[in-house]
Amino acid sequence: MKDHHKQRKNIVNRLAKIEGHVRSVKDMASNERDCGDLLIQIAAIRSALDSCGKLILKDHLEGCVSEALKKGDETVIKKLNVAIDQFIR
Amino acid sequence: MKDHHKQRKNIVNRLAKIEGHVRSVKDMASNERDCGDLLIQIAAIRSALDSCGKLILKDHLEGCVSEALKKGDETVIKKLNVAIDQFIR
Repeated sequence: MKDHHKQRKNIVNRLAKIEGHVRSVKDMASNERDCGDLLIQIAAIRSALDSCGKLILKDHLEGCVSEALKKGDETVIKKLNVAIDQFIR
Repeated sequence: MKDHHKQRKNIVNRLAKIEGHVRSVKDMASNERDCGDLLIQIAAIRSALDSCGKLILKDHLEGCVSEALKKGDETVIKKLNVAIDQFIR
């Protein structure tokens, strides 16, 4: 892991948990579990994804963006704005 | 699959795709891919989850809810309202 991605291990772990959560909801759907239960689990996965996305954004700002701006590279802001437009509704 | 869950196979397939998508983003994070790229993928997964949740809700309304109400069972509405409160922000 590069130094400027302090949270990457944490982010990978969170994504691994989310992957397992999606798999278990898929199994619930196969096993004819109640639709309401599925919806509640999907809302929980979405919430975990949002938290993970926020962590990626903060890690990016503290690391990559901060370093690039110190070097006078402003293109990083433009690139990040594209991602923010999609991530924040 | 029960008759009143017409979309369950479709829902299971969508969840399988979402599971694979989360796994590939986890691999991107492990491989030091750009934070902006990760955020864009996370937004795409969230959007796929929302679509899948909407499909579950519609399937539920057309099947379970419709059948229960025909039999005079109103408790299904109360249960569904709990799920809707969590699913729709």
